[in-house]
Amino acid sequence: MDNRDNIFSFEIDAVQGFFVPDEAVLYDLVIAGWGPAAVSAAIYAARKGLNTAIVTKFKGGQINDTPVVENYPGFKSIGGKELTLEFNVHARQYGLPLLTGEAVTKIEKNNDIFYTSTENQRILKSRTVIYATGKRNRRLNVPGEEKFIGKGVVFCAICDAPLYKDKKVIIAGGNNSAFTVATDLVKIAKNIVIINIVRGWTADSYLQNSLKKYNNVEMLDYHRIESITGNNDFKGIKVRNLETSGLYDIDADGLFVEIGLIPNSDAVAGLVALNDNKEIITDRDCETSLPGLFAAGDVTDVTYKQVVIAAGEGAKAALSADNYLKFISNKGE
Amino acid sequence: MDNRDNIFSFEIDAVQGFFVPDEAVLYDLVIAGWGPAAVSAAIYAARKGLNTAIVTKFKGGQINDTPVVENYPGFKSIGGKELTLEFNVHARQYGLPLLTGEAVTKIEKNNDIFYTSTENQRILKSRTVIYATGKRNRRLNVPGEEKFIGKGVVFCAICDAPLYKDKKVIIAGGNNSAFTVATDLVKIAKNIVIINIVRGWTADSYLQNSLKKYNNVEMLDYHRIESITGNNDFKGIKVRNLETSGLYDIDADGLFVEIGLIPNSDAVAGLVALNDNKEIITDRDCETSLPGLFAAGDVTDVTYKQVVIAAGEGAKAALSADNYLKFISNKGE
Repeated sequence: MDNRDNIFSFEIDAVQGFFVPDEAVLYDLVIAGWGPAAVSAAIYAARKGLNTAIVTKFKGGQINDTPVVENYPGFKSIGGKELTLEFNVHARQYGLPLLTGEAVTKIEKNNDIFYTSTENQRILKSRTVIYATGKRNRRLNVPGEEKFIGKGVVFCAICDAPLYKDKKVIIAGGNNSAFTVATDLVKIAKNIVIINIVRGWTADSYLQNSLKKYNNVEMLDYHRIESITGNNDFKGIKVRNLETSGLYDIDADGLFVEIGLIPNSDAVAGLVALNDNKEIITDRDCETSLPGLFAAGDVTDVTYKQVVIAAGEGAKAALSADNYLKFISNKGE
Repeated sequence: MDNRDNIFSFEIDAVQGFFVPDEAVLYDLVIAGWGPAAVSAAIYAARKGLNTAIVTKFKGGQINDTPVVENYPGFKSIGGKELTLEFNVHARQYGLPLLTGEAVTKIEKNNDIFYTSTENQRILKSRTVIYATGKRNRRLNVPGEEKFIGKGVVFCAICDAPLYKDKKVIIAGGNNSAFTVATDLVKIAKNIVIINIVRGWTADSYLQNSLKKYNNVEMLDYHRIESITGNNDFKGIKVRNLETSGLYDIDADGLFVEIGLIPNSDAVAGLVALNDNKEIITDRDCETSLPGLFAAGDVTDVTYKQVVIAAGEGAKAALSADNYLKFISNKGE
């Protein structure tokens, strides 16, 4: 009944023309993103009867790359992909038009109408927008990084860790994410090197302690990765000891980059107020500095970034958008 | 594995002495309530390693009396009792001590320690409190109401509606709740009378319209219920037409009271700031006016009252409590 096999077949929807947003329509609401905040917003918007279209680059949020979620109330333990599936089963029953594979590149507002532009030059029109595009991995921004992504440089640890059984791997980062990856890799890789650009490590002490029983771990703080080495194949890194300024090579089979996340707020950077971390500033009802544009989840300055919190904020954003639409429609009468 | 049959056997736990909070212990956290906000807070607190105890009058929140929940993301459609069960299965795995059947009567703070008193004169000690006791039904506060609760005066429409098949029922209220109950009862009762104390009706127009096709509905706005009639058995109501001041009797088999909800904030009324609706004033991180006391869900001034929003706020409250505990422990070093 759920048709779960096809729930991710957005391409099939697109070929059939059924679920593709219509550029000629003035929607009540356009939702950008498709993580927990966006999905929750879509459910609430659909149930409020808002004519809603969704645009997303990816078919799920960060949880799609999370092996197990154990803190979303109601699901004791569920895979990230499985929870994404449940969210999709829930939200897609409403048949909202959904465009996937295209990031939102720009949002503009003119005469109370929002124009949401996508990578492929589509422009969707709406009276309100919910921006819930989440965060992406921060990159090292060093020579060779781009070239070797997926060929030695790894951003999705969960996806690729199994490929590094009995290999030597480098982990860039000193936070909880880096040490979580390290505690997984230390058991399967031959040896691991953890490198942090600042002095010391910010990971929780129990994570740091859990590595101490292993003798295949090397830890280098106050070291900066300068470049990725290798011609056709990934070879390793050039790293500088910031204490001595000495530059040397570390050969390895892979580099896992875990140096934090950055919000996907570029498309609205000139439109709404951002904080110093480039997160969208929101109030408790998910209003931004621009009336009619709401934001929810990890792309915002909400203090805690969690699945259930993002889902709650998505619901708030949709209810606020509904209130706003009632307000402007009363104003026009 | 879940032991679902026993998940609500709090009494059994209590007899075994296993899950009962210990009055001699200084807990990191006491959670008051056991609806979605409290359950979510408990999950997050347990996973943060906080030594946590829970006190609750009821074995679930308002959703326990809700027939179907279709807007908690991840569950397309689930009974309120079933969702409460899933929340319990999730939260109770952590084995937190939980005291049920006793409302919190008072919370005090002395020398950075919170003292949470219960109906049965227990006192729990903790460094932080999360207050998430939700809302309860507003009463008419007229003579006879108390006496006939459960014997003609109904506050849980979902529980009791089936008992009024082919009977005459009165519904007090003019909001969405009242009309939702009316749309259910109109199909099974012989006839229904809807009474509202103010002029007109605040229910959404589609709810009002859905009653129009029935000819067994009488609607009396600007009427005030003055008392419940009947000696040993419920007989009906005395009602005053506020236009004419005329007082008359309406005989019926039952009275469904749907005149809104009031926050269960009495136990902290002198301790933290409340708004005019007696909701606890919170900031976006669920902090109240009193450091160390956090609040979440429908008992607070959060704008929208929804299951997923309460669950998100509960998670925030637990993470804020954890941060506060780290802060005071660093301060003391």
